[in-house]
Amino acid sequence: MNKLRFSISTSLDGYVAGPNQSLENPLGVGGEQLHEWAIKLAAWRKAHDKSGGEANPSSAIVEEMFQNVGAVIMGRHMFGGGTGAWHTDWKGWWGDDPPYHMPVFVVTHHPREPLPMKGGTTFHFVTDGIQSALQKARRVAGDKDVLIGGGANVVQQYLAADLVDEINVSLVPIFLGSGARLFDNAGGPEQRLEQVRVVQAPGVTHLRYRVVKNSA
Amino acid sequence: MNKLRFSISTSLDGYVAGPNQSLENPLGVGGEQLHEWAIKLAAWRKAHDKSGGEANPSSAIVEEMFQNVGAVIMGRHMFGGGTGAWHTDWKGWWGDDPPYHMPVFVVTHHPREPLPMKGGTTFHFVTDGIQSALQKARRVAGDKDVLIGGGANVVQQYLAADLVDEINVSLVPIFLGSGARLFDNAGGPEQRLEQVRVVQAPGVTHLRYRVVKNSA
Repeated sequence: MNKLRFSISTSLDGYVAGPNQSLENPLGVGGEQLHEWAIKLAAWRKAHDKSGGEANPSSAIVEEMFQNVGAVIMGRHMFGGGTGAWHTDWKGWWGDDPPYHMPVFVVTHHPREPLPMKGGTTFHFVTDGIQSALQKARRVAGDKDVLIGGGANVVQQYLAADLVDEINVSLVPIFLGSGARLFDNAGGPEQRLEQVRVVQAPGVTHLRYRVVKNSA
Repeated sequence: MNKLRFSISTSLDGYVAGPNQSLENPLGVGGEQLHEWAIKLAAWRKAHDKSGGEANPSSAIVEEMFQNVGAVIMGRHMFGGGTGAWHTDWKGWWGDDPPYHMPVFVVTHHPREPLPMKGGTTFHFVTDGIQSALQKARRVAGDKDVLIGGGANVVQQYLAADLVDEINVSLVPIFLGSGARLFDNAGGPEQRLEQVRVVQAPGVTHLRYRVVKNSA
């Protein structure tokens, strides 16, 4: 059975973005520090068609993120484009050849034809909710996993609906103080989690949890 | 130089107690799960004058907590006793021989004479704020560290005042959904933290951070 999983960086106080998020500064004040551990890595640079970079225990974490993944789900804000003409011209933040190389399902209220990009990425726009997006993603993923690419809001929706199988949190030693919290309304004590793996790396700790299903 | 440090268990969503805290249920709904990793340990039982229990990588964490500690600070709710006659009869939750065996400074608005207990614990009641409590604790601790025993509110006050040197978080894989959050108002991006150590143990991950002082 394939898994629905996500990998996300949070501050020690639980934020995935800092205060005052905007189109110009989508990570908010201080939020770029959440990703410093990743973007200096050769593994990350390679996935974004760049050379150079370093290797450390975080490298395997970056490589695993897209291993055995057959489809990606993302929220409308992560795809971006504002509220105006985005549905006609906007093609996402990632240029002509996005780093996904597989179908990406964008959960949105704005219908739009599928958008094929170079390198195998096709953006599909799903307007009938997270359950429908997951069904469509699972169908194309087959035996492979479905990755929730972000942002926090769509991750929260899948957590609250008890649809997530695996949680990967990269815990960064910073405080952001305010902003978007990952685990707001994520679940209560009735939700059972199992700690699967912990990887300590420079400037970050990678934690993996399995969500124990009530039916299991 | 001695350190001001604390050790506290939080849920994955950042709570140190669950919802609906009360005198009968001071940890709130589901909150007792935060401490299951500790109370089954021989190291914890021994510190509370009990025999039996198991050993695992968490044992050293429990043992270290009071090592090289010369004084404890705690908040008024952690000392307990309600708002009525507490300042005349109440002697804390821990019986005649509390597990501290050193001076404990209770930050409170209610003046009271020092309360010596068996086994070396004396409760001192400090009514002129957290800075004063820290001064008094440092004076008796000498070269040893000062431990903030809890609860969350007094920890937050010391964090917000940038007085904490070391943060020890034991991250437990549960969601509490609501309750008392440890890192509310703890600081912002200007606060620098350094990840010092990560210990994976059954059902918990122990994280240690050093607070980098702006003057350093």
